[in-house]
Amino acid sequence: MVSTPVVLGLDFGGTKIAVAVGDLSGRRLGATTIESRDGAGAAEAMTRGLTTARELLTEVAPDHELAGVGAATLGIPYDDRVELAPTFPGWGELPFGRLIRDAFPGVPVRLATDVKAAAAAELRWGALTGCDPGLYVNLGTGLAVAIVAGGTVITGAHGASGEIGYNLRSPADAYVAGEERTILEHVVSGQALETTGTARLGRPVTAADVFTMARTHQDAAVLTDEFVRELATHLANLAIAVDPSRIVVGGGLVRSWDQLEPGLRRALDAAVPFPPELSVARFPTDAPLIGALALGVEAAGVDLGAEAFA
Amino acid sequence: MVSTPVVLGLDFGGTKIAVAVGDLSGRRLGATTIESRDGAGAAEAMTRGLTTARELLTEVAPDHELAGVGAATLGIPYDDRVELAPTFPGWGELPFGRLIRDAFPGVPVRLATDVKAAAAAELRWGALTGCDPGLYVNLGTGLAVAIVAGGTVITGAHGASGEIGYNLRSPADAYVAGEERTILEHVVSGQALETTGTARLGRPVTAADVFTMARTHQDAAVLTDEFVRELATHLANLAIAVDPSRIVVGGGLVRSWDQLEPGLRRALDAAVPFPPELSVARFPTDAPLIGALALGVEAAGVDLGAEAFA
Repeated sequence: MVSTPVVLGLDFGGTKIAVAVGDLSGRRLGATTIESRDGAGAAEAMTRGLTTARELLTEVAPDHELAGVGAATLGIPYDDRVELAPTFPGWGELPFGRLIRDAFPGVPVRLATDVKAAAAAELRWGALTGCDPGLYVNLGTGLAVAIVAGGTVITGAHGASGEIGYNLRSPADAYVAGEERTILEHVVSGQALETTGTARLGRPVTAADVFTMARTHQDAAVLTDEFVRELATHLANLAIAVDPSRIVVGGGLVRSWDQLEPGLRRALDAAVPFPPELSVARFPTDAPLIGALALGVEAAGVDLGAEAFA
Repeated sequence: MVSTPVVLGLDFGGTKIAVAVGDLSGRRLGATTIESRDGAGAAEAMTRGLTTARELLTEVAPDHELAGVGAATLGIPYDDRVELAPTFPGWGELPFGRLIRDAFPGVPVRLATDVKAAAAAELRWGALTGCDPGLYVNLGTGLAVAIVAGGTVITGAHGASGEIGYNLRSPADAYVAGEERTILEHVVSGQALETTGTARLGRPVTAADVFTMARTHQDAAVLTDEFVRELATHLANLAIAVDPSRIVVGGGLVRSWDQLEPGLRRALDAAVPFPPELSVARFPTDAPLIGALALGVEAAGVDLGAEAFA
């Protein structure tokens, strides 16, 4: 019996953990998703994710030879910790890389932030193909971007490029430490809109609910107008700095794209000397997972061709 | 008689035009500087710059064979125009590349923005050596940056990356066209500080004067505090997006570095998850000229080694 090599991709997000098994060309053989949080904490969520991955492997590729594992996460992953993951209590203390390696002994592993994995997927197979430079924007639970230039994702000197959720909102905050000021992500992110919406609209709502209500309710429309205007300001300034040919947007909030796009488009046209194209990502909600599969294939030592997912 | 190959570098700035002759290793054989503006306009300034360059060539390298010309300019140079050069009336309409080529028939020519040429000089021979990514900031008559990553300067899809002088200053401006809003450069640049200082301090002052007066005069100190705070805000956000290992600052205003550095350092430490190093450029006032020489050598088809200027 011949054993077929497969790769495993894991995407640990703030609300869900997605796992997929693919072949070496990147084709998905199976995928499943579980909730990130059920009250038992970060370590338990990681364990459930790894168990789910093993079960999926057994189910879709019983005679598999696991050739590589790619893992994307919120925050910046290292073997002994995860930096910049404050939205998921306990996640930062997990020895992320070590736990993944221990779960699949002897299998090569590659790690990346979820947003950089997503950008890599869009650059290789999606809406950023051929863009130099290009910008990937993730509008999910949190807010971050990835800058693509020279055919690769710019990782930064500490793996932390694109973490614009930490942006200063005004010169008044210039000298105030992050923990004492309202950072951009506290105002512009799915989590922020959910929190503000729930407080201001008088009942528990999701970010998507706020956008839906904004079609008919003035109070909700004010919230989404403020949200889009502030997001647009920071994206326009980033576009001025990078001069991308295209900006692509992914993450859960793109379900409200018809309400996001006009303001973003308007600000880019008004502010940026050479306004870039603007579109939804090709893999708006599962780009990090597809990126994780790509990392798995890269970990396996296989040079990925652009034909996969084409 | 053997003819020695030399290259010519020209840097057309908002206040001065600098020209230099170098050998193919980048060593400067001679240089001179003239004023950009004497009231006769952009075309005349270009002509004077080219005449000065020819005179310098004759003077320092009478038996020269001109092997390449590099030209840096404010704005974004093309053969038939210069984009984004509003501070020098008439400059945008000059057929920049064509005029350079016509002045030196048959000699290979390379063009770049002044700030990108400066960043290339710092990356190759100066304070950005080995930085990936790194940021070059030009604080001169205008305001712009260059992002360095993967061993090169990111030019952008239209050659316009780094033009943060156009930045939005607040979400209130998000949908207002550039010509109707106060762009960042109208507040944070040498020209801006000169204009505001002259208006608010009751007598004609240069930007350097305002910084000098700020040591003893409260009114001037308020101006420079506001200036540094707003600059620091935009630099911090850019550092968050790029995650550079180092930011280097060049341009005429670095003469007031002791008054710029504390605020910039403080904002970077407070706002950026992984604060970058911060220093004055190696070639704070003539990096564009050195970059132009490098462009000239590149135009001549010579692969520059890192040993030049070392």
